[in-house]
Amino acid sequence: MAYITLPEEDLLPGIRGLMAFSPETSKPLNALAQVLLHDTDNTLSPGEREMIATFVSSENDCMFCKSVHGAATRCYLEDDGTIVNQVMYNFQEAAISDKMKALLSIAQSVQKGGKHVKTGQIEKAREEGATDKEIHDTVLIAAAFCMFNRYVDGLGTWAPDNPAAYLPRGIKIKEEGYANYDPMKTIVR
Amino acid sequence: MAYITLPEEDLLPGIRGLMAFSPETSKPLNALAQVLLHDTDNTLSPGEREMIATFVSSENDCMFCKSVHGAATRCYLEDDGTIVNQVMYNFQEAAISDKMKALLSIAQSVQKGGKHVKTGQIEKAREEGATDKEIHDTVLIAAAFCMFNRYVDGLGTWAPDNPAAYLPRGIKIKEEGYANYDPMKTIVR
Repeated sequence: MAYITLPEEDLLPGIRGLMAFSPETSKPLNALAQVLLHDTDNTLSPGEREMIATFVSSENDCMFCKSVHGAATRCYLEDDGTIVNQVMYNFQEAAISDKMKALLSIAQSVQKGGKHVKTGQIEKAREEGATDKEIHDTVLIAAAFCMFNRYVDGLGTWAPDNPAAYLPRGIKIKEEGYANYDPMKTIVR
Repeated sequence: MAYITLPEEDLLPGIRGLMAFSPETSKPLNALAQVLLHDTDNTLSPGEREMIATFVSSENDCMFCKSVHGAATRCYLEDDGTIVNQVMYNFQEAAISDKMKALLSIAQSVQKGGKHVKTGQIEKAREEGATDKEIHDTVLIAAAFCMFNRYVDGLGTWAPDNPAAYLPRGIKIKEEGYANYDPMKTIVR
């Protein structure tokens, strides 16, 4: 049970119950997720963006967020879970580009706190081809998931244990993004 | 110098340079700040909301955010800086309500990580009269400033040293909120 009374709580785990409770904050939160993770007018693909979100959520030990965004990453990358697990447990050895490793290193520092990011990490990312926009977006995605993870766990919401429970949401994210997300419309009785 | 090249960087410290660099993410970030901190259809006043933002930014040691939101708090509360300083350095002894102390205790835990919030802290807030909406907003404000602080410091932006430099922005926040904020329009040459 969450710390506050949420509508349809048994059917709406994680941030879904919170978004049903507070549609007025849900709107800018989903707009932020849309532009950061889904809009594609950028050289970091949606799959790479979702990978950063998954990794930071894993570092914050947020079961709901790492599972939802891990599912979205799998859908984008057509990954059976191998790459997502590699990223969460030891990204330096994962089957991803050196640029993504450098960006995940920056994200890892952001998770600890903004001042943990060091010039050398930025230089390394640039050496691997990262642009200013990619570095900016990596920091903001990592920072945003330090918010989403705290929102979800700080209010004591529940999360399904079974990883398979998250795959339908991953598919929906790839297909529809976040902009028009309405948790109440996702309820299947 | 920030880690990435920002427009008019010498005139736009902190998040202002980042918002000029990335208007597409600036929009939902300001919309979130507007609904969380400024819109007044709620029992937590804008001054109390800005106080939570200031406190979390202080816990995260983010000079820019604690100074801007400290200035906004001072404007709302007509405080000469005494209360804001008390909140940042020892909120349990500050001249604020017991309800605000209970909510700041929750915010302090959220700053450490979502799972640091304990049932007893929620019960204490309820005993002091906090509603579900107030607890929700406290957690989300605290979580959001874990994002804003990381965004500002994770990209190495600069911040004025002089506290007086932030007071004009505090006044503007009270008068105009965040929704239509455009950093480029704030430049005075």
